[in-house]
Amino acid sequence: MSRPLSVGVAGLGTVGAGVLKLLRENAGIVTARAGRPIAVTAVSARDRTRDRGVDLGGLRWYEDAVALAADPGVDVIVELIGGANGPARQLVQAGLAAGKPVVTANKALLAVHGAALGAQAEQAGVTLAFEAAVAGGIPVIKALREGLAGNRISKVAGILNGTCNYILTVMRERGREFAEVLAEAQKLGYAEADPSFDIDGVDAAHKLAILAALAFGRPVAFDEVHVEGIRHVSALDIAFARELGYRIKLLGLARRTEAGIAARVHPCMVPEAAPIARVDGVFNAVVAEGDFVGRIMLEGRGAGAGPTASAVVADLIDIARGRSTPVWGAASGHLSDAPSVPIGAHVGCYYLRLMVVDRPGVIADVTAVLRDQGISLESMLQRGRSPGEAVPVVLVTHETRESAMRAALDRIAGLDAVLEAPTLIRIEPA
Amino acid sequence: MSRPLSVGVAGLGTVGAGVLKLLRENAGIVTARAGRPIAVTAVSARDRTRDRGVDLGGLRWYEDAVALAADPGVDVIVELIGGANGPARQLVQAGLAAGKPVVTANKALLAVHGAALGAQAEQAGVTLAFEAAVAGGIPVIKALREGLAGNRISKVAGILNGTCNYILTVMRERGREFAEVLAEAQKLGYAEADPSFDIDGVDAAHKLAILAALAFGRPVAFDEVHVEGIRHVSALDIAFARELGYRIKLLGLARRTEAGIAARVHPCMVPEAAPIARVDGVFNAVVAEGDFVGRIMLEGRGAGAGPTASAVVADLIDIARGRSTPVWGAASGHLSDAPSVPIGAHVGCYYLRLMVVDRPGVIADVTAVLRDQGISLESMLQRGRSPGEAVPVVLVTHETRESAMRAALDRIAGLDAVLEAPTLIRIEPA
Repeated sequence: MSRPLSVGVAGLGTVGAGVLKLLRENAGIVTARAGRPIAVTAVSARDRTRDRGVDLGGLRWYEDAVALAADPGVDVIVELIGGANGPARQLVQAGLAAGKPVVTANKALLAVHGAALGAQAEQAGVTLAFEAAVAGGIPVIKALREGLAGNRISKVAGILNGTCNYILTVMRERGREFAEVLAEAQKLGYAEADPSFDIDGVDAAHKLAILAALAFGRPVAFDEVHVEGIRHVSALDIAFARELGYRIKLLGLARRTEAGIAARVHPCMVPEAAPIARVDGVFNAVVAEGDFVGRIMLEGRGAGAGPTASAVVADLIDIARGRSTPVWGAASGHLSDAPSVPIGAHVGCYYLRLMVVDRPGVIADVTAVLRDQGISLESMLQRGRSPGEAVPVVLVTHETRESAMRAALDRIAGLDAVLEAPTLIRIEPA
Repeated sequence: MSRPLSVGVAGLGTVGAGVLKLLRENAGIVTARAGRPIAVTAVSARDRTRDRGVDLGGLRWYEDAVALAADPGVDVIVELIGGANGPARQLVQAGLAAGKPVVTANKALLAVHGAALGAQAEQAGVTLAFEAAVAGGIPVIKALREGLAGNRISKVAGILNGTCNYILTVMRERGREFAEVLAEAQKLGYAEADPSFDIDGVDAAHKLAILAALAFGRPVAFDEVHVEGIRHVSALDIAFARELGYRIKLLGLARRTEAGIAARVHPCMVPEAAPIARVDGVFNAVVAEGDFVGRIMLEGRGAGAGPTASAVVADLIDIARGRSTPVWGAASGHLSDAPSVPIGAHVGCYYLRLMVVDRPGVIADVTAVLRDQGISLESMLQRGRSPGEAVPVVLVTHETRESAMRAALDRIAGLDAVLEAPTLIRIEPA
């Protein structure tokens, strides 16, 4: 048995407290699996007086997180502060500079500064681990970077934000509108007071950028992810989706195409029978397709103290065992320079919902615009009649290029009979 | 870049050929992820003339698989011969004895001799890797042994045999009987000419024994797995399952109970809405429940050349990178001595189908037997009437101890009005 691995934890929110709790409650299991004890000996957080449900007695305490890196008694840094910049980034840089392995749950940091941090870790010959940054306790980083390492991956996709999936699930199950479900989720603690990071798709895009980098072996490229959130998904669209045999999910999708890597986060209609369509509530799921392995799906809790602590401790056990993997799966010299493909080049089927004045000739005008853009229709739905009033019209297209769809949409939105901004939702095959 | 990792492959069936193909087609990806090239330089198989769809030119060829271990040009052994004994076992032993890492896809070998081989690997300080032994390309060994390593696992369960899942899926979808679907599966190559290993549950039990050892950190105990196959599942039971809101799946289940570890493979009724109920055809899935991570499910192709080669190569990449893990997740001194719990101690709900003579008093006789054993009924179904003829009667119990159920069954089978051996299927909660 080697000497204990001594851990410094920065950030004592629910996840930080969860890590302390796990390492204590499961000390026997962790010691057996790690080949040595793993113990937190130093912590950093702003408020020393708050009750976190774990005993902090006997731990060295730092006001300044970055000081953890200089503590000679700390072997490994765990960064749970969050945020792409500020003390989180400084601590990770300082830890690597000090030659100490760093474990982080910080997806924003990795999505935005991951390439530079990966290069720093590589030069220092030190591990930078981040299983907890994507999909909580589901070991998806390990699966992509090690388990499927022999495959040429063609696609990685997932439900990466539990808040959005919870809101969309409740909207569907209860037929309710976005705003009221969001308010309820905030009361229940499933959504933040400022929810924009989640519901505008930014959090999912951070995670997708990380997954895409690992899947396709290229530098992380968050700025090139196309991002749309779920604010504009309405109960009406969810009802139409059901009628058409789909469910609406916020997906992150990254695909290898001939032109490069296409990465996007937006609400999708997915066939009801697709496994990912059935992943409901706060659960996350990640699908990966490789040339030899075929399609794999991993599903579980994507957030919360327990699952996230499970992922952080898995990284610590790897470090204790001396198991390490290059940050982005391969040394920087082996990363691909495949370009990113803009959303305008996307080809797929589209759901288009318009609110139009119920009068003869409107559908003819709309379909003429689509025809002019070379867009072929698969189906059209107009439920209910109220002559002279606003009624919803749903159009589903065959495969179409996004740029053509956008051009058509601009013209359709300008038609007299079209009363609101059209709703466009991309349809994804299973 | 280090020097190439030189691999000797024993067994050139579809999986062996798949490993050669993957290492060649994806050489760039493998080199990047492994940090060095991985190349097969020596092989062993019985028939040198058979066309395997891969070029074997330039490879050293051994008639005797065990001789691979002595080849000084071979760094790592890949054992794909199969079988719990004979040359497969000899080769793995010889490889470890020669201080060479061994990768195997051989679940029978690990289930039966895994404890001894683990001890040998530990003493020799050499890796014995077996991702391909369970659930094909799904990285479930890595998930349990590394990804969830911080958790106290309470349950691991799965659809572990694609042949059985395929047969049960087709029986349900087409309302057909076991024997004819089996014959068809044999024609399609989804079932072996001698299918007993699959359909009698032995293959699933090998895999479950491995998963249970990893999940609960104890020596592999194949002999203590309770095993039943799917020969006795009938179209009638599948139809009743549907009516009751269940699907019939062959599951492997291992649970940590107060009395020890309960491990069993048998057909189960699982609620239609459970994620595992929807895993159809040749797909496999594994569910694990940990105290911090909650419930995780992994799903994908559990067999076939591509997925199995993907798993073998993942192990080779780990070895090339110097990542290693004790065979059973912890050093032998850290394994638990939790006893196995016999099936008689199982407590659960049961589906019981009888063929009885349709005459007054039969149900009263049957229910009296159940009452005498303290078994409480949740529901009873008797569809159709044909006075004096055989009709099916279905009884669903509340939670009951298996030993009581067995005693009741013996007495019920002896009743005059009961015409065939009763069918008993355990009901598993989601």
